[in-house]
Amino acid sequence: MTYRIAVLPGDGIGAEIVPQALRVLEAVGAKYGLSFTFTEGLIGGIAIDETGQPLPQETLELCRNSDAILLGAIGGPKWDNLPTHLRPEVGALLPLRKALGLYANIRPCRTYDALADASTLKKEVLAGTDMVIIRELTGGLYFGSKGRTDVDGVQQAWDTMIYSTPEIERIVRLAFETARHRRKKLCSVDKANVLESSRLWRETVNRLAPEYPDIAVTHMYVDNAAMQLIRNPGQFDVVVTENTFGDILSDQASMLSASLGMLASASLGGRVGLYEPAHGSAPDIAGQKKANPIATILSAAMMLEYSFNRVAEARAIEAAIEAVLAKGFRTGDIMEAGKRLVNTEEMTDRVLEEL
Amino acid sequence: MTYRIAVLPGDGIGAEIVPQALRVLEAVGAKYGLSFTFTEGLIGGIAIDETGQPLPQETLELCRNSDAILLGAIGGPKWDNLPTHLRPEVGALLPLRKALGLYANIRPCRTYDALADASTLKKEVLAGTDMVIIRELTGGLYFGSKGRTDVDGVQQAWDTMIYSTPEIERIVRLAFETARHRRKKLCSVDKANVLESSRLWRETVNRLAPEYPDIAVTHMYVDNAAMQLIRNPGQFDVVVTENTFGDILSDQASMLSASLGMLASASLGGRVGLYEPAHGSAPDIAGQKKANPIATILSAAMMLEYSFNRVAEARAIEAAIEAVLAKGFRTGDIMEAGKRLVNTEEMTDRVLEEL
Ligand SMILES: CC(C)[C@H](C(=O)O)[C@@H](O)C(=O)O
Ligand SMILES: CC(C)[C@H](C(=O)O)[C@@H](O)C(=O)O
Repeated sequence: MTYRIAVLPGDGIGAEIVPQALRVLEAVGAKYGLSFTFTEGLIGGIAIDETGQPLPQETLELCRNSDAILLGAIGGPKWDNLPTHLRPEVGALLPLRKALGLYANIRPCRTYDALADASTLKKEVLAGTDMVIIRELTGGLYFGSKGRTDVDGVQQAWDTMIYSTPEIERIVRLAFETARHRRKKLCSVDKANVLESSRLWRETVNRLAPEYPDIAVTHMYVDNAAMQLIRNPGQFDVVVTENTFGDILSDQASMLSASLGMLASASLGGRVGLYEPAHGSAPDIAGQKKANPIATILSAAMMLEYSFNRVAEARAIEAAIEAVLAKGFRTGDIMEAGKRLVNTEEMTDRVLEEL
Repeated sequence: MTYRIAVLPGDGIGAEIVPQALRVLEAVGAKYGLSFTFTEGLIGGIAIDETGQPLPQETLELCRNSDAILLGAIGGPKWDNLPTHLRPEVGALLPLRKALGLYANIRPCRTYDALADASTLKKEVLAGTDMVIIRELTGGLYFGSKGRTDVDGVQQAWDTMIYSTPEIERIVRLAFETARHRRKKLCSVDKANVLESSRLWRETVNRLAPEYPDIAVTHMYVDNAAMQLIRNPGQFDVVVTENTFGDILSDQASMLSASLGMLASASLGGRVGLYEPAHGSAPDIAGQKKANPIATILSAAMMLEYSFNRVAEARAIEAAIEAVLAKGFRTGDIMEAGKRLVNTEEMTDRVLEEL
């Protein structure tokens, strides 16, 4: 079996971390009898520099003709003063999500015993944290109609948070299915006491719930969820929420882990899934071999699991990473006294050894 | 000088904590030569029980004819199954904010040396945390047009995030003024890379900034703000943001303090300001004299400062509370080993002694 992977390193540390994940995919392939073809494409700032477009048509075609996409990171100060819609992140990510129908963003967030003391939250508060945040990714305020008007010389600007029943159903079903393979708890986050779109969201969750009698469903207001994530993160298993709330909560939840350098993500929905680390392009350390490749390697593991249903292979990668951490190897972002500092490539070498 | 205060204890612990704040106001009045008339009104669940309405017309009239409002807490399980618009919180708070033009919600959030280890965040991360979150309170998704439609048999529900330039200007000016009396830093939080209303927000902040050359202005995306609040809360002085983002971030920030029982709030804009603790009605401990009255007492201090410009009096109350904490007195929510547990009234007694 040969999988065609679109490889989009993007900007900053993207060019350093993505090749590491490819090394791991190669190694797993050799061991388990899978093969991959990797085809590189331009995206983000580097694509603007070379083609004038953050998401060139050629890259979109490459993605469409692949079995999965591995993305590094996008953006940097060089492109920050462009008009918004041409800026690397917005100009590439939003159209890519829409064009490929990537309506579900999956962000696992867990703590590692070996890194238990690296978060700004207390160790005992984080004990047992292991959740997945599922964010709706192609609806809501991001894609609803927006604009400006002049009313009697006064400017008004608006955005529309809009959801249809089928849009809610598909993401909520995916969340129920995800919970089924985990601890069987689903928390749907909304603001149903104020928002009509949240009321439709909540009704839809409640209508589908009887089809998943094995899953314990709860509802939580988004303001309370932002508190509970810090107060008692261990209470969450699967969290599902709309686009803007998910943007905020998943970034907030990323602080529960030791480092952004540990967090993977998947964006799913269409035939082709997109996998990328949760962190950004880190221009301050780009080109210095300091970046932590683990988030990208874990994103490749998610690819194996979600796009190719290669669960054993995904688990093997995760186990290798845990073993490397347990042995005390650390990149700069997770370094502590008494541990062994390694660079981007060396960290990957250790992971490959464990595999 | 006699100030007319509308007193709305509301539900749950409201009836226990509000009288404590009135005792403190009386004491401060006696010492500094101010007098108050306190007139009680019904609001929330208790108002539903007695009048069928969460915000009776009589209560609204009382508020309009007062110089300031002191509110306890609203809601409880008894009323949770009512239709949303009749529920105590939504049915009382939203119309009250709108009717009185309370467009600015002010939430100070600081840590107390005496309680430094009581948050779920590490002590060293919280060191120096002292911010004010200013949330726009009468615009955005809360009050924009909303509704449902059927498009070819498919339900759609929407809400509108809408802001006009004058709405943004008045809250942003208030934030600049607030920063002027503090550490002179203003962080405006938006999602200007995606939302048109955020772009108008950001333009407005930038347009006003030259009028406040002494204030250092920064902009931050809301997802990043949710991270930074946990990563390095000490970086913030004054934060200003729109209604929904402010709802989420101010509740999140409340976790930086030792207890919700310590956090005051003010809602300003019209002639009459509304002051209330940031916590809820805590039905689980209602009627047991366990509630922490400090948040309500601090809200009364905010009333003295913001509505009556009695700054020395407000500072005196705050200093008294710090002294009581330093002496080791604690209500249940902030109790630690080696400290002295006191009930609602005893905590107030201690504060009065210090005054
Ligand atoms: C860059 C931005 C448009 C994007 C978003 O808000 O979706 C980013 O924050 C993310 O979460 O992937
Ligand atoms: C009860 C609810 C409508 C309210 C809000 O969202 O404004 C509350 O969460 C608050 O922050 O005061």
